[in-house]
Amino acid sequence: MSSVVHVGLVGFGVVGTGLVQCLKRNRRQIEARAGIPIRIKTIADLDITTPRNADTTGIRMVTDAREILEDPEIDIVVELVGGTGFAHDLISRSLRAGKDVVTANKALLALRGHELFDLAAEKKRLLLFEAAVGGGIPIIQAMRTGVCSTEIERIYGILNGTANYILTRMEESNLDFERALIEAKAKGYAEADPTYDIEGHDTTHKLVLLSQLAYDCKIRFEEVHREGITRLTAFDLSTARELGYRIKLLAIAKKEGDRLEVRCHPVLIPLQSQLAAVSGVYNAVLIVGNPLGPVMFFGQGAGGDATGAAVAADLMEAARQIQRGPDRKNFYTFDHQEIRVKSIDDSVCAHYLRLVVEDRPGVIASVATALAEQSISIASIIQKERHESHQGVPVVITTHESPHSAMARALEKIGEMEFMADLPYSIRIEDFE
Amino acid sequence: MSSVVHVGLVGFGVVGTGLVQCLKRNRRQIEARAGIPIRIKTIADLDITTPRNADTTGIRMVTDAREILEDPEIDIVVELVGGTGFAHDLISRSLRAGKDVVTANKALLALRGHELFDLAAEKKRLLLFEAAVGGGIPIIQAMRTGVCSTEIERIYGILNGTANYILTRMEESNLDFERALIEAKAKGYAEADPTYDIEGHDTTHKLVLLSQLAYDCKIRFEEVHREGITRLTAFDLSTARELGYRIKLLAIAKKEGDRLEVRCHPVLIPLQSQLAAVSGVYNAVLIVGNPLGPVMFFGQGAGGDATGAAVAADLMEAARQIQRGPDRKNFYTFDHQEIRVKSIDDSVCAHYLRLVVEDRPGVIASVATALAEQSISIASIIQKERHESHQGVPVVITTHESPHSAMARALEKIGEMEFMADLPYSIRIEDFE
Repeated sequence: MSSVVHVGLVGFGVVGTGLVQCLKRNRRQIEARAGIPIRIKTIADLDITTPRNADTTGIRMVTDAREILEDPEIDIVVELVGGTGFAHDLISRSLRAGKDVVTANKALLALRGHELFDLAAEKKRLLLFEAAVGGGIPIIQAMRTGVCSTEIERIYGILNGTANYILTRMEESNLDFERALIEAKAKGYAEADPTYDIEGHDTTHKLVLLSQLAYDCKIRFEEVHREGITRLTAFDLSTARELGYRIKLLAIAKKEGDRLEVRCHPVLIPLQSQLAAVSGVYNAVLIVGNPLGPVMFFGQGAGGDATGAAVAADLMEAARQIQRGPDRKNFYTFDHQEIRVKSIDDSVCAHYLRLVVEDRPGVIASVATALAEQSISIASIIQKERHESHQGVPVVITTHESPHSAMARALEKIGEMEFMADLPYSIRIEDFE
Repeated sequence: MSSVVHVGLVGFGVVGTGLVQCLKRNRRQIEARAGIPIRIKTIADLDITTPRNADTTGIRMVTDAREILEDPEIDIVVELVGGTGFAHDLISRSLRAGKDVVTANKALLALRGHELFDLAAEKKRLLLFEAAVGGGIPIIQAMRTGVCSTEIERIYGILNGTANYILTRMEESNLDFERALIEAKAKGYAEADPTYDIEGHDTTHKLVLLSQLAYDCKIRFEEVHREGITRLTAFDLSTARELGYRIKLLAIAKKEGDRLEVRCHPVLIPLQSQLAAVSGVYNAVLIVGNPLGPVMFFGQGAGGDATGAAVAADLMEAARQIQRGPDRKNFYTFDHQEIRVKSIDDSVCAHYLRLVVEDRPGVIASVATALAEQSISIASIIQKERHESHQGVPVVITTHESPHSAMARALEKIGEMEFMADLPYSIRIEDFE
């Protein structure tokens, strides 16, 4: 074995720059704790001329990733190109070449990860991805170490900084979604096309990865029920607050026996809960397990610095294992549990319903009847003053627990009622500490 | 190597019971993730007749720990007896006998840990202690893994559930310290002699362990400045709240260059911060590092279930390493950094001063002069109505940053002023997100 661990970095963007900075800045500490120096030998990127804010002295800069793949001295490949095509090919070929892999690519791992994890296990190589879920939050390594003795019953995650920033600003300043989105774009917190973040794709990718680790099983992205935050209004956020709740876009997993509920959507959560205090671009994951009880992890969800530090931590784990011998221990055992993902129709929740109606007699009676027909029990009804968010009179109904299917049928019927000024909208309520 | 990892448990109290339950309840998961079955072979306790709420079928019960020490089949010794005498001897002899050790004994590790860690390194055996800091919070393993690439700049910890419960109740229900303590005792959250918890000993022990891990250095318990919560009143908590703060007993470590500040005392922290939301018996640790930024861990600080799960997680780490070969990798490198602990005199903080005075002219002028003589700049002065907490008129002064030594001199002078109805009391203010 060499006296240095050599790394090849593919993709020299924001996270790559953060990684190079971190390895340089904390070089002594990283070497002492990893037990061996970790050196980036080669960086491959199509653009190797634009200056980055990182010192690349002594690093070979190339435009073709094959120079990393075919270099027998390189022990670990860091994949930071993103996407699910070239990145898949790169990781697959790296593992086949006997190299360990570190990636931040949640979309790839969520959509095409199973074969890559199987390949890593077969080749006895590492495929590490701390940076893929909650950038600066060490949740992945924690799942493998400190919480690994506990049976995880529930996961609640705020995993997308863009969506959380938008929701925070909507509530703080009574902004409607579109206004808050414009502000997020201006601050650089939202992409020009924000679909991936605001429609919950990103959160769902991370949920797939977390759930697989937590429940030792394989989950397909398509099995996860997903709703975005685009239908939420300032009215919903302020009304939720009056009811003692805050609205967050949550990734949720719940295990009951051999059945798993996995869903990503806006949720009313108790205002006093630790998760409700997570504001702006921060992320957090609350795990409830047996016997560990509730544990929450909070930190930065993105950014080159935090994500670069997470990639560096994975490199240290790989470096430690490389020193232990020719094979690696992945710790991921996605196969050992027989778990089926539950249909969303069977998922049971309390709900907040926002109905915007024309102000006339009989409205409440009709709505209450439609709910009663589906055996949905009403917890409270609040008729509000007109609100700038909506053209009509908003009525908010909270219900006791009912299955998704019953609620969907009731909403369909209510939506057809002639006094409805807008489509009815329901948000799930989750109660926890 | 055997096909089972054998454990000897010494001390069968609440945590030991939690451990036995956890290993049994989550047996399949633990075996799959550790890669090998983990079996408790022998339990040693002076009392082996009182029934515990755990199934000990197949476990040998003995009253003499030597039966564990002298059993060559036992790979790992779990020390849950507590105290710093017998436990020290047991751990030392276990390591010398080539066994790995898992302990929850923070007092022992904080007061006499250095020689034990050195011994473990020498013998290439593990000395793991996840359960010693924040029972159910996987902070120790996170320090070794997910956050290990980051330079930790500051640590803020709520590490004692008893003290946090008392402070929460004082603020919630406007209780004075003694009343809240009685309530905590009635609920089983405080010991008959609560000194260890309310005077900050326990928090300080944990701070020593966290700081040593974070800064790769050795710290002596006596070097840590420590103040308890017994002088706090309901008045202080409600006044802090008016000022936008909440009072918590915090463990604090701050590194600047090669100098380290380590202290444990009550602190005013921003009401909107994530740490301020940690209420009741819960614990949390906020780490601020470069480049990771802020990361917070939240969970149960004590209790047999959570702490037992933490011990089990350590057993899994040990079991994984045992399978890798004859030597272990401890990851603790307490020696590689040259760090000196700063004298508390040089520590600089903003302060909240509570002065209880007789209501007469000239009071503010005299106090302001005493502060000015020490170059302490006043941020605000609030004279309050009489409050049931105090015999006299409370005046609250907040100051800008000043060294501890200057504040101590000013308080000594103010304390001698004839209009003072009680000793002056100062609490530090820390501002963070």
